[in-house]
Amino acid sequence: MSDIEIAQKAKMKPIINLAYESYGIPSEHLDPYGHYKAKLSLEYVDTLSHQKNDGKLILVSAISPTPAGEGKTTTTVGLGDAMNRLGKKTIICLREPSLGPCFGLKGGAAGGGYSQVVPMEDINLHFTGDFHAIGVAHNLLAAMIDNHIHHGNALGIDSRRIKWKRVMDMNDRSLREITIGQGGSSNGFLREDGFDIVVASEVMAILCLAINRADLKERLGRIIVAYKSDKVTPIYASDLRAHGAMAAVLKDAIKPNLVQTLENNIAIIHGGPFANIAHGCNSVIATDTALKLADYVVTEAGFGADLGAEKFLNIKCRSSKLAPSAVVLVATIRALKFHGGIEKDHLNQENLEALEAGFENLERHLNNINVHYGLPAVVCVNHFTFDSDAETDLLKKKCEALGVKCIVSKHWAQGGKGAEELAEEVLSIVDNRKAGFNYLYENKLPLWEKIKTVATKIYGADGITAGAKIRAEIAQLQ
Amino acid sequence: MSDIEIAQKAKMKPIINLAYESYGIPSEHLDPYGHYKAKLSLEYVDTLSHQKNDGKLILVSAISPTPAGEGKTTTTVGLGDAMNRLGKKTIICLREPSLGPCFGLKGGAAGGGYSQVVPMEDINLHFTGDFHAIGVAHNLLAAMIDNHIHHGNALGIDSRRIKWKRVMDMNDRSLREITIGQGGSSNGFLREDGFDIVVASEVMAILCLAINRADLKERLGRIIVAYKSDKVTPIYASDLRAHGAMAAVLKDAIKPNLVQTLENNIAIIHGGPFANIAHGCNSVIATDTALKLADYVVTEAGFGADLGAEKFLNIKCRSSKLAPSAVVLVATIRALKFHGGIEKDHLNQENLEALEAGFENLERHLNNINVHYGLPAVVCVNHFTFDSDAETDLLKKKCEALGVKCIVSKHWAQGGKGAEELAEEVLSIVDNRKAGFNYLYENKLPLWEKIKTVATKIYGADGITAGAKIRAEIAQLQ
Amino acid sequence: MSDIEIAQKAKMKPIINLAYESYGIPSEHLDPYGHYKAKLSLEYVDTLSHQKNDGKLILVSAISPTPAGEGKTTTTVGLGDAMNRLGKKTIICLREPSLGPCFGLKGGAAGGGYSQVVPMEDINLHFTGDFHAIGVAHNLLAAMIDNHIHHGNALGIDSRRIKWKRVMDMNDRSLREITIGQGGSSNGFLREDGFDIVVASEVMAILCLAINRADLKERLGRIIVAYKSDKVTPIYASDLRAHGAMAAVLKDAIKPNLVQTLENNIAIIHGGPFANIAHGCNSVIATDTALKLADYVVTEAGFGADLGAEKFLNIKCRSSKLAPSAVVLVATIRALKFHGGIEKDHLNQENLEALEAGFENLERHLNNINVHYGLPAVVCVNHFTFDSDAETDLLKKKCEALGVKCIVSKHWAQGGKGAEELAEEVLSIVDNRKAGFNYLYENKLPLWEKIKTVATKIYGADGITAGAKIRAEIAQLQ
Amino acid sequence: MSDIEIAQKAKMKPIINLAYESYGIPSEHLDPYGHYKAKLSLEYVDTLSHQKNDGKLILVSAISPTPAGEGKTTTTVGLGDAMNRLGKKTIICLREPSLGPCFGLKGGAAGGGYSQVVPMEDINLHFTGDFHAIGVAHNLLAAMIDNHIHHGNALGIDSRRIKWKRVMDMNDRSLREITIGQGGSSNGFLREDGFDIVVASEVMAILCLAINRADLKERLGRIIVAYKSDKVTPIYASDLRAHGAMAAVLKDAIKPNLVQTLENNIAIIHGGPFANIAHGCNSVIATDTALKLADYVVTEAGFGADLGAEKFLNIKCRSSKLAPSAVVLVATIRALKFHGGIEKDHLNQENLEALEAGFENLERHLNNINVHYGLPAVVCVNHFTFDSDAETDLLKKKCEALGVKCIVSKHWAQGGKGAEELAEEVLSIVDNRKAGFNYLYENKLPLWEKIKTVATKIYGADGITAGAKIRAEIAQLQ
Repeated sequence: MSDIEIAQKAKMKPIINLAYESYGIPSEHLDPYGHYKAKLSLEYVDTLSHQKNDGKLILVSAISPTPAGEGKTTTTVGLGDAMNRLGKKTIICLREPSLGPCFGLKGGAAGGGYSQVVPMEDINLHFTGDFHAIGVAHNLLAAMIDNHIHHGNALGIDSRRIKWKRVMDMNDRSLREITIGQGGSSNGFLREDGFDIVVASEVMAILCLAINRADLKERLGRIIVAYKSDKVTPIYASDLRAHGAMAAVLKDAIKPNLVQTLENNIAIIHGGPFANIAHGCNSVIATDTALKLADYVVTEAGFGADLGAEKFLNIKCRSSKLAPSAVVLVATIRALKFHGGIEKDHLNQENLEALEAGFENLERHLNNINVHYGLPAVVCVNHFTFDSDAETDLLKKKCEALGVKCIVSKHWAQGGKGAEELAEEVLSIVDNRKAGFNYLYENKLPLWEKIKTVATKIYGADGITAGAKIRAEIAQLQ
Repeated sequence: MSDIEIAQKAKMKPIINLAYESYGIPSEHLDPYGHYKAKLSLEYVDTLSHQKNDGKLILVSAISPTPAGEGKTTTTVGLGDAMNRLGKKTIICLREPSLGPCFGLKGGAAGGGYSQVVPMEDINLHFTGDFHAIGVAHNLLAAMIDNHIHHGNALGIDSRRIKWKRVMDMNDRSLREITIGQGGSSNGFLREDGFDIVVASEVMAILCLAINRADLKERLGRIIVAYKSDKVTPIYASDLRAHGAMAAVLKDAIKPNLVQTLENNIAIIHGGPFANIAHGCNSVIATDTALKLADYVVTEAGFGADLGAEKFLNIKCRSSKLAPSAVVLVATIRALKFHGGIEKDHLNQENLEALEAGFENLERHLNNINVHYGLPAVVCVNHFTFDSDAETDLLKKKCEALGVKCIVSKHWAQGGKGAEELAEEVLSIVDNRKAGFNYLYENKLPLWEKIKTVATKIYGADGITAGAKIRAEIAQLQ
Repeated sequence: MSDIEIAQKAKMKPIINLAYESYGIPSEHLDPYGHYKAKLSLEYVDTLSHQKNDGKLILVSAISPTPAGEGKTTTTVGLGDAMNRLGKKTIICLREPSLGPCFGLKGGAAGGGYSQVVPMEDINLHFTGDFHAIGVAHNLLAAMIDNHIHHGNALGIDSRRIKWKRVMDMNDRSLREITIGQGGSSNGFLREDGFDIVVASEVMAILCLAINRADLKERLGRIIVAYKSDKVTPIYASDLRAHGAMAAVLKDAIKPNLVQTLENNIAIIHGGPFANIAHGCNSVIATDTALKLADYVVTEAGFGADLGAEKFLNIKCRSSKLAPSAVVLVATIRALKFHGGIEKDHLNQENLEALEAGFENLERHLNNINVHYGLPAVVCVNHFTFDSDAETDLLKKKCEALGVKCIVSKHWAQGGKGAEELAEEVLSIVDNRKAGFNYLYENKLPLWEKIKTVATKIYGADGITAGAKIRAEIAQLQ
Repeated sequence: MSDIEIAQKAKMKPIINLAYESYGIPSEHLDPYGHYKAKLSLEYVDTLSHQKNDGKLILVSAISPTPAGEGKTTTTVGLGDAMNRLGKKTIICLREPSLGPCFGLKGGAAGGGYSQVVPMEDINLHFTGDFHAIGVAHNLLAAMIDNHIHHGNALGIDSRRIKWKRVMDMNDRSLREITIGQGGSSNGFLREDGFDIVVASEVMAILCLAINRADLKERLGRIIVAYKSDKVTPIYASDLRAHGAMAAVLKDAIKPNLVQTLENNIAIIHGGPFANIAHGCNSVIATDTALKLADYVVTEAGFGADLGAEKFLNIKCRSSKLAPSAVVLVATIRALKFHGGIEKDHLNQENLEALEAGFENLERHLNNINVHYGLPAVVCVNHFTFDSDAETDLLKKKCEALGVKCIVSKHWAQGGKGAEELAEEVLSIVDNRKAGFNYLYENKLPLWEKIKTVATKIYGADGITAGAKIRAEIAQLQ
């Protein structure tokens, strides 16, 4: 059966009921979107944040990505289901998939086989409208920039130094580089512009780092949209008084979305910044909420561990004071053979030599996790039918030689049951270890934060207003 | 109290409960969007369509619009509430408001005073995502056009004769006329393009005329997106095989949305094509559904009766075989004085002469409705505090001279109670009359329909496939 | 023999020798361009202007133009040669042809048959570089506008209200509407622009009205290049200090060009503004110079008499105080039959009815010339082989009925000899009449001229400087 | 006195007379452009080419250019005048200056002080119209490309892969990157384009390598203007049948221009491709002609010897079978001190250390000339008032140590007299040496030449026609 056939046969529970049964969430704090998707109110999230105990956080990362596929999301779902099967209250946190690439190259992003989140089609299409809202907020700021210039440009924006493009949730090559404002003076001034896809919007990244509505609004205000013709003086979204309206447009998008796995366990899917240009993991609010509700939270980060885990740890965890207790490093025999030099069409044939050669990639990621971040790791071999025993044996032996457990996991074919061994190994680690890890680099307080701190002391106002005052004074000095 | 203050104080009932209580709609046929908005399943709509009895349809139209405002939506809400107060099962049908102009000039479009639909802010912002979905479907087709040209242009589209622009639900002057495809050969070919707002999308008009998913898909396939360089051969969306994906994107948007009035009566708000370039009324599915559920349905059409009622009758009613039983023609003393030559700032002063002069406008609309369409009309004077008794008396007298009842209605200040007199007059008309009216012009079967009919006979395939075959053969002859 | 074959067989005399023999022009006042083209020094032109006696001016105009062709230039050449044959010192004055349309639709513009000016190919190609210089002067101003904006835009030019396009002497449809300034901030600001052909440049019109270098420079300074964002304050070329450099670039282009006819009579060919958007006749300097050198000057004006003669009389003659003594109105039997409703392919067949019908066009032009301008006219029928005797007889009779002489002239086939009858008739008129005519409308002194006059009195400076001062003061008042 | 004051005081001889006196050129082979510029007929050039004896060719090159200036053109003029003063019949060959940069940063390019060519202002402005003609020829091809696409694009040009931009003889940053073809279907298809300055036109480079009109036309035909959408199949100017018209436009531009030095010696100034993107020296026709007329020819090449002399030798000399007998390497004390690390403002102060350090640059150029090209060199120190004796002594000593003569030359201040010592040294070298040098790299016959050779043998037609036939056959094979 294909992923979609499995998904369509799922026996979903009404999400309102499931959320109440599983975690006692009262229905008035859930906004349903159909019967199987719901948004959690920020008031409830706020209540949770005052609770003492936090769950344990497990990060699912992977070796360097290959066209053969590794299965981070599938493993996250399978591991979560397995842990719930073992009686451990576990919530998984995932990113929302982008419509843009879905129409284009990639499939959806809701797991696969018997380890999926549902309702799959809804999740892959409009879901709860978060991406639409982010697009509107983003484009509202863009429109306000051009509008400001059209009406006299009091801020002195250099129209050639506008850094804020427009967005559309569509893979549309023709919109990448465009000229806008044509057609006469009532259409504003001409300038070069372009469209990114919504997941590449800075608004997306901001939404995923914000901890509440006030923080969201302030972060939106700090967006640099352009420079003056002196090439160095920035224009902020707050200079255009755009951040209030943007935050209003995002009033629902900031609420985390609840859905379920095929095995009726709660999954939170919220936010999805691109891993290449942003930090590539679900929202801080989603992870924070899951950690307050459940005893264990499994989440994943985009691309390989060098990029995805790095950003997860040094950006998201630092920004939100999160700390994972362990890392599951996903690999496949096929992908390792690909790294070992085998072409995509020959990955199904046993090849111990190639596997050995490709192991170098896995080894390096393990080394980064263990040595640099000081985190324990488990290698999860996401099982394929064609994997030979000789291959899995070799892989296990090589991992053991590094002091790391390597577990062949069959969640794709068997759901949570297939990942029980993995779950047990993970639990044995996280239950015997205090959460914590090392940052790769020191985080110096950025200039703007320092200015705001000083400014607030001087003027007694909130950071952004006071900071703007200081900025204005600095500007006058020059 | 302002509109928004009144709306925020509303005591809404959970829409699932209200729909069940009022019309026995089972909850499994309602997709909730939060607790106060819901979409009705098309399966339920289909069940309804096999029922015999239909409600009576009442159209709310108005005199020629002025900056003084008339209040069609407010009157529709007030009249509906009044009829329900009189024990008549009545549903109102409205258009969804556009986000674009909301950020810009106009206020929302959810009625006013004590005659509003709620939750007002949601309705005015993202609502149930219909406009977002329409935008995506529209832009998907646009992207497929440029993609087709980029990949060799097998259909021979003349890139200077593409008639399908892009859309965004934003008032953004800079995007009105743009050049796309810049930045080198991987971004396609340069061409002139532009953005309309979503309510101006042909997809919006199509969604509002479609009677089910199959009809939607076929109508989408018939969109003319461009012409060949011979200037006359059209390229259809179906030539690009875009209509299937577009229909998929619209799978939820086609479902009618249920909300409530301040007085907890069901309102269906669905679709909102611009009245200037399209037909300017809510979806056929919404009106059809309401007529099966309720005994009376009150709906409105954009702009004055010459434009809005004309399109409602000759396009929407003809297309869907609907027929109103009566027309409520909304006017205000202020607006009539404006038509009589008084400036906007002096409309609050009594001026019988100007009122008399402005009456000409009302008279012409009444004449059109009565004589040309053969429909009975009631004049509703949407009451303002400054209206003098002498003015209302004069107006009533002049209407009576034309054989038309003129009722001063206070629903803005008093809700349904204030419109009871109006409701009684309307009921006395529609209960004593068979629905029906005259078209203004004959509707000749368009060429494409004829070709499809012939083609289906010849090839035994569905209309669009067979029609394409015929078209191809015709093309070869030339 | 084709025109070009006849032209190539011409026995030209070295222009330096011819100018000396014919009119005693010393060689040091002639800049040769090859052996058969020369420019006359402005110093010599200035010497001439102090001479008392002026020649008689004869304007060659035509009926409304048709695709059949009439032959104004050919008739001008033929009439000039005929008058010289009759011993009358006569110079003809013509416009320089545009390279742009030559590469495109039209043939050259140097006459035809045995009534041509030579060296024909040179005249039709680069000639003496006048058009190139005008193009450079024009584009220099354009570049200075964008340069000014790029460097901070101290004048506050609204880049959407720039009225000065660029020019190229080429029929290049792709350059008609363009977007410039793309590619990043070092390339200036984006704006919509376009290219006209050189003959449509205002610099061309100015060069043809200027009476000397100082006048040229001042006229260039008065060009309105743009408006400020208040939509009404003009920016002049003088504001950009561009007019000095432009005048320098035109230092040779302003000198009149001497060539010869096939019969070795002097022709002055200088300037060529388009008749549709400008005044459509050769330079004032050329006509003035010819009138001082010769006893008779024959010149022509673009399009039909309603457009070409109108502009010649009301613009050029008024601006330069010139006055023609007579008008030769050129017609062909073919063209008149075309006006009478006959298709282009059937014009060679005798058709008296059509000729009679088409005569209406000729009659109206004659009426304009005689009645409105108070000028005597001769109708010249430019003879074609296919003209029947019945047709020419009819035409003559109808002209005589209007009191106007109609002469069939065979200069195309026979050169000057063929136009002797025409020449005699023209001479009999102009020798017995004082030059003079009526303007169609009064020429009110333009605001700018009044301001300059007042300003010069106040400030004692030259007009343009003083005027700018006044302008600045007016601007400050607002 | 400034350069322009000296130039304006020059006692020029009529060029027709001077050319006859000096080299017996009959006046019928000279097209005068005013009295002091003339073009030599190609018929006369052709006659010369059959003469046996050739003059000796001396190349003036320089050290790496600095903002301090070196004076290649001035030295070329001074050396030529000096050689004539010594009774040696010598002609100098120079490039025509570009109008574009003249309006912008750089001064003119007609020498300086008492070593100039005149009439200086004419040379720096329109001269004999060569650059205008090159611009027209270039833009004609550009217009024909877009015209071809507009009319159906039978050649299948990929409008995103057009390599032929437009040109204008103007420094106009706004035209560097533009979008053309806007404004609807009658203006063609939109595409990205841009303007180069005329000296960067490939037509300029071609004109300067062509040896006669037939060669010019064939070279024009071989221009690659675009590629097909397969990215590799080139479209040639000949495919568009543009080369004939282009050659016609250039019929006069190809003729070499004669002017004179301040000392009334003949100078040929013809062509001027940019040295950065093309070969940077005057036309082959000019140099060839000078070598037939005179016993010695002095010419210069753009930029420093590494770039200018390299291209002169490996491109121009190879293409035309020319061979210089010696190289004069121009340097200044100031420029050498600049290379030695001194700022521009302190170059007038004696600094032996810096001079020694900067000598490295001179040494490397000398080494290249002597060792790699096998050519003898003389170092010419172009004297400045501030040069100290100690500095010139040091420089001389260091040159002698390398076996190269170093001569301080005062032609800027004294004209030819000041360069007599330099002239004597140059003569002593070239009179005792056979012309000849080594190429830096082997010149493999390009594929196109090979194809043409084979094709001509097969089809017996001229190269370009036959080559096109072969190309077509190759294309069909694929």
